[in-house]
Amino acid sequence: MATNKPTTTRLGLEAKKEENLADWYSQVITKSELIEYYDVSGCYILRPWSYAIWEAIKEFFDREIKKMGVENCYFPMFVSQAALEKEKSHISDFAPEVAWITRSGKTELAEPIAVRPTSETAMYPAYAKWVQSHRDLPIKLNQWCNVVRWEFKHPQPFLRTREFLWQEGHTAFAIREEATDEVLQILELYARVYEELLAIPVVKGRKTEKEKFAGGDYTTTVEAFVSASGRAIQGATSHHLRQNFSKMFEIVFEDPMKPGEKQFAYQNSWGITTRTIGVMNMTHGDNQGLILPPRVACVQVIIIPCGITNNLSEEDKESLIKKCSQYLDRLMNAGVRARADLRDNYSPGWKFNHWELKGVPFRLEVGPRDMKNHQFVAVRRDTASKLTVPEGAAETKLKILLEEIQTNLYNRAAQDLKDHMVLADTMEQFQQELDSGKIVQIPFCGSIECEDWIKKTTTRDQDIEPGAPSMGANSLCIPFKPLRELQHGAMYISGKEPAQHYVLFGRSY
Amino acid sequence: MATNKPTTTRLGLEAKKEENLADWYSQVITKSELIEYYDVSGCYILRPWSYAIWEAIKEFFDREIKKMGVENCYFPMFVSQAALEKEKSHISDFAPEVAWITRSGKTELAEPIAVRPTSETAMYPAYAKWVQSHRDLPIKLNQWCNVVRWEFKHPQPFLRTREFLWQEGHTAFAIREEATDEVLQILELYARVYEELLAIPVVKGRKTEKEKFAGGDYTTTVEAFVSASGRAIQGATSHHLRQNFSKMFEIVFEDPMKPGEKQFAYQNSWGITTRTIGVMNMTHGDNQGLILPPRVACVQVIIIPCGITNNLSEEDKESLIKKCSQYLDRLMNAGVRARADLRDNYSPGWKFNHWELKGVPFRLEVGPRDMKNHQFVAVRRDTASKLTVPEGAAETKLKILLEEIQTNLYNRAAQDLKDHMVLADTMEQFQQELDSGKIVQIPFCGSIECEDWIKKTTTRDQDIEPGAPSMGANSLCIPFKPLRELQHGAMYISGKEPAQHYVLFGRSY
Repeated sequence: MATNKPTTTRLGLEAKKEENLADWYSQVITKSELIEYYDVSGCYILRPWSYAIWEAIKEFFDREIKKMGVENCYFPMFVSQAALEKEKSHISDFAPEVAWITRSGKTELAEPIAVRPTSETAMYPAYAKWVQSHRDLPIKLNQWCNVVRWEFKHPQPFLRTREFLWQEGHTAFAIREEATDEVLQILELYARVYEELLAIPVVKGRKTEKEKFAGGDYTTTVEAFVSASGRAIQGATSHHLRQNFSKMFEIVFEDPMKPGEKQFAYQNSWGITTRTIGVMNMTHGDNQGLILPPRVACVQVIIIPCGITNNLSEEDKESLIKKCSQYLDRLMNAGVRARADLRDNYSPGWKFNHWELKGVPFRLEVGPRDMKNHQFVAVRRDTASKLTVPEGAAETKLKILLEEIQTNLYNRAAQDLKDHMVLADTMEQFQQELDSGKIVQIPFCGSIECEDWIKKTTTRDQDIEPGAPSMGANSLCIPFKPLRELQHGAMYISGKEPAQHYVLFGRSY
Repeated sequence: MATNKPTTTRLGLEAKKEENLADWYSQVITKSELIEYYDVSGCYILRPWSYAIWEAIKEFFDREIKKMGVENCYFPMFVSQAALEKEKSHISDFAPEVAWITRSGKTELAEPIAVRPTSETAMYPAYAKWVQSHRDLPIKLNQWCNVVRWEFKHPQPFLRTREFLWQEGHTAFAIREEATDEVLQILELYARVYEELLAIPVVKGRKTEKEKFAGGDYTTTVEAFVSASGRAIQGATSHHLRQNFSKMFEIVFEDPMKPGEKQFAYQNSWGITTRTIGVMNMTHGDNQGLILPPRVACVQVIIIPCGITNNLSEEDKESLIKKCSQYLDRLMNAGVRARADLRDNYSPGWKFNHWELKGVPFRLEVGPRDMKNHQFVAVRRDTASKLTVPEGAAETKLKILLEEIQTNLYNRAAQDLKDHMVLADTMEQFQQELDSGKIVQIPFCGSIECEDWIKKTTTRDQDIEPGAPSMGANSLCIPFKPLRELQHGAMYISGKEPAQHYVLFGRSY
């Protein structure tokens, strides 16, 4: 029957990661069924294959913050103009990207209403109501929600989208040290999301003045590196707001030690987004498609029956299918997320390609001969290596191998980062490293002007040097652990000012 | 110290449920910390105390639909005008309430973009892309998200809000029976959310033509009854869309039995919202505050140390606090969601009121004498009855009693529904029952005009009859199990047309 033939014949990728990263990326995310395109620019459909990764991240992070005493809640997505514009330096950063509702049905609203780009201004008026005494602190709230930033830069699925999903934590403390401790605890959780779940190494550090969160005191960040593009990407940020917002929103209490004096709360905010999924694909994907780290894969093992030829009796065929179902049950019972692809209108070869493209960590093949020999063949997605496993060892062996894949993916990415993050003490060396696709730690003075100067100086005109990356370098972070300690009296790389610390710079997303 | 005194002295409710339901409702939801008011009209803050109930509902429903093969995903909240207006009867119902983004920053958008009131029109263009062969069906997707309906009727927290949280399931099938079976499976899950989790009995049925989902084929519903107001409330709906949307959006495939002929998919959509929390409060709340059904209570048992007087030695005080912590650990280990209120700046009496107001099902009191006697006092929130329990029986006894509370709440509400849902065969009798706060099953012809007539006829002018409810009656549903089978040849209540079935009418939210 005509309908039994797959309608899509172009299964594989038609672009290579090392040749055309942009095409490769958009083919992988659509063909692996992570994303479907949508008719509103900058918005994308998260299909079950990607949403499951987000659910895995949510489950981990939600459990961990609940242990810290954080509670989930939900604030409206709409923000009044008055609240939105209360903190001036905050809004000046977000204002150009704010989407405004001005009409319902055919009726103009009396006042336009903003869609949250982030919820500081939506939440803190309520915090001001709730905080009367120091006993009302700390407040530790989190919400899982959507936010909107109407960017006009070129959108890219997961990495830069007009609507995205995230969690945003907002906490308020009486004591500053409790707030600053939490900033780092949360950053550590973000690092674990990347390193332990997504198998992506990150550089932890603090943002420079230029790159910190608008209205905050300081921002900590985890930065990842995409070696395919030689560009860095901000992974997640945890901000200490000090008393900047509590002063604007009047989140005040009386200090029991200083009766009669009003005290402003110390606040943090922190967030991680669905960008994680894009970074995962950029890091691990290859020319066969996606590679899912086992811990976030909604299917860890795909079981495929092989060797069903016309010579095979109906009975043998049935017992082969039954064997596959047995493997499925056994693996599921052992806590392995397995699925069997028993469709009879696709060949094993087609299925191999399909599930490789979708990045399933392990393929379990069973044929009539394997059955006779009480064994199966296991194929790793990360290395394509094949091994024969005795039937009885399915659960134990695969569980060990899944952890091996997780570790191998991490190690590969960590080696990549190690090879591409270098030190430079002169502008010439810095530029050279940048142009060879690296991120670079340089002695830096910390000023906004000098950062602008670096950006400008490192920008390459593609008309003059065809093929060279044209983008200038940003600061990514002031690493908590630089590759080398800054020497006493070291000068900022331009040679004009004393350096404050090594700062990691790079081209970035 | 001044700050050790609670700042809120007005702890209890200042309105009675039976005297002023509206005031009572708004006091309960704010004082129990379910809701905080917000500065955008029709939008409310869901505080952790209410969000935890939503999480409990989510956890149950999500697990159940995953068993049915439904997968979670996320579609953009923005809908293009072209997609939104594709299904005419659908959009005509939603159009007046659609919120439009027309501007980002200071830039007017080239085309206004709608915020989803529901996602049929956002999702189905993608379904059309995904469906080529009958093998691509069924598609079973669900998303947990926010939606916006910019209503101009008086808003009420949980019950009618401009933004609310819900899940929306959207499924497509090759075979109609699979779709119609699913409609009822989902309705059954909604009934379980109300009956098993929220302890609220519901009437299952089908909506009339007038009240069905715009653009759908038919709508099934679970309807709850709020005896305090004599009004019914729609609990959740599960729609069969037949091929109405698939024809508009061209979700087509080839029927393997009829090669060459294109076939439209059969679709369903279904949703349950945060309105559940409001219905729960309306049903179970009393003049002491909220009453949480144990299965959705994030705190099931609150432990309060009592009898700490000045005569008590420091040592005895410490051992009392330690005893409370032991109870806490034991209950938590047994899977009971317990919390201990060990604050020393509030009296036991204040704490009793506080946790009663918040609706915690059980209070566990321990004083020095109880300790000596190896016992504690347990106080039920639903009946206020007290009993003394031997220390060793804490886990077993409380677990049984929590189930008893759950059952008692359900039984109370079920009795209430039984007492307030009646039959009427004449208009006079119908009007009388309505005006005494009941919902009424009447023989009905099914036509939209007759339903309009009933609404108009049952509307009471408050100027003429002060104090009488002024609102006219809507049809709530055609119950699957009417109180009595319709007799052959029965006439519609106006006497003019033959009746089709008993239809449940009532004043409603």
